[in-house]
Amino acid sequence: MDIKEIIDKKSKGKELTKEEIDYFVDGYTNGLVADYQASALLMAIKILGMTEKETFYLTNAMLNSGEIMDLSDLGFIVDKHSTGGISDTTSIALVPICAACGVKMLKLSGRGLGFTGGTIDKLEAFDGFKVDISMDDAKKLVKENGCCIISASSDLAPADKKLYVLRDTTSTVDSIPLIASSIMSKKLASGADAIVLDVKYGKGAFMKTKKDAISLAKLMVKIGEKAGKKMDYVVDDMNEPLGYNIGNRLESYEAIELLSGKKGKLRDVTIDLASKCVSLGLDIDYDSAYKKVVEVIDNKTALEKLKQMIKSQGGSTKLFKGLHLKPTLIIKSDKDGVLTKIDCSMLGTLVGQMGATRQKITDTIDYNVGIKTFHKLGQEIKKGDVLFEIYAKDKTQAKEFSEKFINCYNY
Amino acid sequence: MDIKEIIDKKSKGKELTKEEIDYFVDGYTNGLVADYQASALLMAIKILGMTEKETFYLTNAMLNSGEIMDLSDLGFIVDKHSTGGISDTTSIALVPICAACGVKMLKLSGRGLGFTGGTIDKLEAFDGFKVDISMDDAKKLVKENGCCIISASSDLAPADKKLYVLRDTTSTVDSIPLIASSIMSKKLASGADAIVLDVKYGKGAFMKTKKDAISLAKLMVKIGEKAGKKMDYVVDDMNEPLGYNIGNRLESYEAIELLSGKKGKLRDVTIDLASKCVSLGLDIDYDSAYKKVVEVIDNKTALEKLKQMIKSQGGSTKLFKGLHLKPTLIIKSDKDGVLTKIDCSMLGTLVGQMGATRQKITDTIDYNVGIKTFHKLGQEIKKGDVLFEIYAKDKTQAKEFSEKFINCYNY
Repeated sequence: MDIKEIIDKKSKGKELTKEEIDYFVDGYTNGLVADYQASALLMAIKILGMTEKETFYLTNAMLNSGEIMDLSDLGFIVDKHSTGGISDTTSIALVPICAACGVKMLKLSGRGLGFTGGTIDKLEAFDGFKVDISMDDAKKLVKENGCCIISASSDLAPADKKLYVLRDTTSTVDSIPLIASSIMSKKLASGADAIVLDVKYGKGAFMKTKKDAISLAKLMVKIGEKAGKKMDYVVDDMNEPLGYNIGNRLESYEAIELLSGKKGKLRDVTIDLASKCVSLGLDIDYDSAYKKVVEVIDNKTALEKLKQMIKSQGGSTKLFKGLHLKPTLIIKSDKDGVLTKIDCSMLGTLVGQMGATRQKITDTIDYNVGIKTFHKLGQEIKKGDVLFEIYAKDKTQAKEFSEKFINCYNY
Repeated sequence: MDIKEIIDKKSKGKELTKEEIDYFVDGYTNGLVADYQASALLMAIKILGMTEKETFYLTNAMLNSGEIMDLSDLGFIVDKHSTGGISDTTSIALVPICAACGVKMLKLSGRGLGFTGGTIDKLEAFDGFKVDISMDDAKKLVKENGCCIISASSDLAPADKKLYVLRDTTSTVDSIPLIASSIMSKKLASGADAIVLDVKYGKGAFMKTKKDAISLAKLMVKIGEKAGKKMDYVVDDMNEPLGYNIGNRLESYEAIELLSGKKGKLRDVTIDLASKCVSLGLDIDYDSAYKKVVEVIDNKTALEKLKQMIKSQGGSTKLFKGLHLKPTLIIKSDKDGVLTKIDCSMLGTLVGQMGATRQKITDTIDYNVGIKTFHKLGQEIKKGDVLFEIYAKDKTQAKEFSEKFINCYNY
C-alpha cells in the first residue's frame, strides 16, 4: 500500500477501505507516514467528509493504537464525556451524584487546554488531591466508594493524541467525523459499558449550531453502539458560561454549591446528564432516574459522596467549609442595559491567560485565579451592579485584565 | 497574519487575498510555515480550486521568491514549454528551427524526472556538451548563433521548487491552478517576451483529457498575458510516445533525423509549435510562419543550426554521422494483432529504470540505454515483426526488461 495513493483516492471523493485507514493510522503512529502527508489527508477529510463506515474504521484504528482498559471486574461502569465548555464543572458534581445513586463511575479526565478548563486541574484545587493513581488503586476506590476521577493515561489511543496535535496546527480540528472518531477512540479505550455525551454548541464551542451538535452526538452514539456500548447524549448551548464561576478553585467551589442546593443552568444540565447516566447504569427509565438524582442532591448524600471521594484521593476538604478566597478587584457597571451577548470563549481565554490553564507545557497552574460572573443572557444590568469579581495574582494583574473582561459583555 | 486562519479560510471555500497568498509563499520559503501546514493548504486548493485572481497571486508570489532574468539586451526572445511527454524531443529540433527562421531563443531546460526524460540529459548525450553556462556566456551565444539551451538555474522561483517537492509526496500535483502557477512562475522568471505552451493530455500526462489540457493552457495564457507576455499554446495527446525512440542518445538522434526530413507525429507537433513561436517572434501570421519552418527543415539550415549550437556549447557532432549504437536485444512479435493501447508512462518509467533518468539524486545517467519502437496506435503488427530494439547496459538487463516492455502493448 502507498500513502500517496490513499491521499489521492480520498482527495477525489472515494471511500477508503478499512485496510487503507489502518495503514494511514499505523503508519502515522510509527513514523512511516510523514506529518505533511497526514495533514494533507486530514484536510481532504475535513473538506469532503467521511462515510459512517470510514468513521468507524478510523475510530477503531486509533482505539487499537494503544491500551484498551478492562474494567469488567468492576461490574457495569458508566462514563460521561463533555466536548468542553466554559464554567463547566458538571463532572465534579455528576460523578458523586451517580455514585450516590448506586451507579459506579471510574472517570478518566483531562487538563485544561486553550480556553476551556480541565476537570483534573479543578480537582487539584482541593490541595493534595491525587490524580495520578494506578489502575489497581483506582479500581479499589471504585469498589469502596463507587467512584473516582483520575488523569487519563497517555497510553490510551496514542494515534489520536499525535493526530490531534497536528490537527490543531493545520486547521483541521473542525470536522464532525474527525471530532467523533477522536472522542470515541479515547472513550472506547476507557473501558466503560455505557457512555453519556454532553455536546456543546454556540460561540464557546467547536460546533456552532444545535443542528451540528446533534449530528456529532448521533454519529458518536452510532460508533459507541456498534462497539457494544449503551449510549445516550445531551446537547446544550455555550453562548454563555454554564455556571457563574471561571477558574479552578472557583469552579470546584461552585460544584460544592450545586450539591448544596444552588439553582441555575449548571445544576439543570448536571441533573439531566446524571439522570441519563443513572438511567443507563440502573436500567431504569429517565423519570425514575431523575427522581433519584434530585433526591441525592436534596438529602446531601451526593455532597457527602464528593467529600468522601476528595478525602479518599488525598484532597483537603477545607473548601467544603466555604470559599477562602477574597476578590482582588470588584468591577461594577457604569451604565444600565440588558446583557445581549457574551464572548464566552474570550472569557475562558482570559482566565487561562491569568494562569488557570497552561499556555505552555512548562507553565505551572494557578488554582486561585479566575472570575465570578453575576448575569446570564437577557438579564438586566443596572449602573452600580457588580459585573465581575476578579481573583488575580495581584492588583496589577487584576487591573490589566479588567477592561478585557468588560469587553466580553454586550449590554 | 496567521497561517492557521489562512488554511481555515481556504478550506471553507473563501477566496484568499494577495496578502494572504504572499504570507503563505514567503512563510513557506523562509521556514515560518511548516511542511504540514503548507500541505494542508495545498490539499484544500487541490479539492476546492482557486479563482483566477488567486492563481495570479500565487504565480507572482512564487515568481518573486527568486531571481527574475533580464534578457532585454537580446531583443525579442521566444520560449517554449512542454508539460512533459514520452519520446518528446521537440525542444532539440525546435530551438534551431526558430533560430534558423530568425527568432532568438535562450532556452532554460530541465533534467528527466520520473517517467519523462529531460532536454538537458538528452543534450548531454552529445559528448562534451556544456549545460551549465553563465548567463553572460549564454547571451553571447544567442547574439552569435541566435540560440542556446542551458540548464535552468535553481535561483528561479525557489518557492515553486520547494512546494513542488512537497506536492509530489502529498498527492497534490494534480491541480490545474497549482500546475499553471508552478509552470508560469518559472517561465516568467526566465525573462522571455513570448511563450508557446505545449500541453499534453492522455495516459502519459498529468492532464487526462483534452478538455483539461485546454483549460490548463488557457489559464497559463491568461497568466502570461497579464504579465505582459505574448502567449500561444498547442495541446497534443500522450496516449502513445510522440516519436519512436525513448532514451537520451536515441532521442537526440531522432531530433537529427527529424531535421534531416523524417516524417511522423514528432515532426508534425514540432512544426506546429515552431510555427507558433515564429509567428509570435516575427509578428507574422501562422501560415507564413509555417512556410518558413518547413523551408528551414527542407533546406537543412535548421539541421546546420543544431550542429552549430552543439559545437558552440562544446558538444561532439559524431551523432550527426549516424547512430553509433547497436541494439542489445531485438524483440519480435509472436502473434498477429492491431495495437490498441500503449502504457506510455510505463514505457518511460522502464527506460528510466534502465538508467536513462536518475532514480535517486546520486545516480549517474546512462545516455545510451533506451528503446526504439516501431508502431503507432491502430497499426497492424504481424508475427515476426520487430516490436522493440532494446539498448541496455548488457544482455542481462535487456532480458530482465524485455517482458516488461512487451506488457506495455495491447494487441
